[in-house]
Amino acid sequence: MIKVTVLYPNTPDARFDMKYYVTHHMPMVRDKCAGACHSIAAESGLAGGDPGSKAPYIAIGHLTFDSVEAFQKAFGPHAAEIMADIPNYTNTQPTIQISEISL
Amino acid sequence: MIKVTVLYPNTPDARFDMKYYVTHHMPMVRDKCAGACHSIAAESGLAGGDPGSKAPYIAIGHLTFDSVEAFQKAFGPHAAEIMADIPNYTNTQPTIQISEISL
Repeated sequence: MIKVTVLYPNTPDARFDMKYYVTHHMPMVRDKCAGACHSIAAESGLAGGDPGSKAPYIAIGHLTFDSVEAFQKAFGPHAAEIMADIPNYTNTQPTIQISEISL
Repeated sequence: MIKVTVLYPNTPDARFDMKYYVTHHMPMVRDKCAGACHSIAAESGLAGGDPGSKAPYIAIGHLTFDSVEAFQKAFGPHAAEIMADIPNYTNTQPTIQISEISL
């Protein structure tokens, strides 16, 4: 099983509409990848590890798939439409991490 | 519910022993925080979002707690011992993110 993690940097002028993200964007991605995307999850940054420090990421999203190939096959045809929705909830440029779930 | 995410950067000379991490380090943290830590999870970086790009993080770990206060109360007394185990599985300096689980 693999996880696609989308990390939105907590820049000084970062804007992120978590309500839109969890009620519209992430369910839309899951629906577009129906049959391939097993789960969606999202988190709001609260803090960093050092006392008083800011969270490195204002928000993080996670999607799970059977394999990288399954993700690419399901996501690819909808990529342009999904990316076009990003400005509706944030002005940040996300970093993408594809991982194998180890535990 | 909050999630503590530990992100290990995928630097050119990064070393990470995932077997040690999932069989020793993460279970040890869970056991030290018994009663407060609800779950542990870990991922191995495979790739970034652009074709052929490296994963930004060589590994990511996750722990969930009821609240930031519950995490600090459970983790604090064992922090030195837990941190001292890090060189046993990696030569990287992790970034910490504390988040509220939103979805």
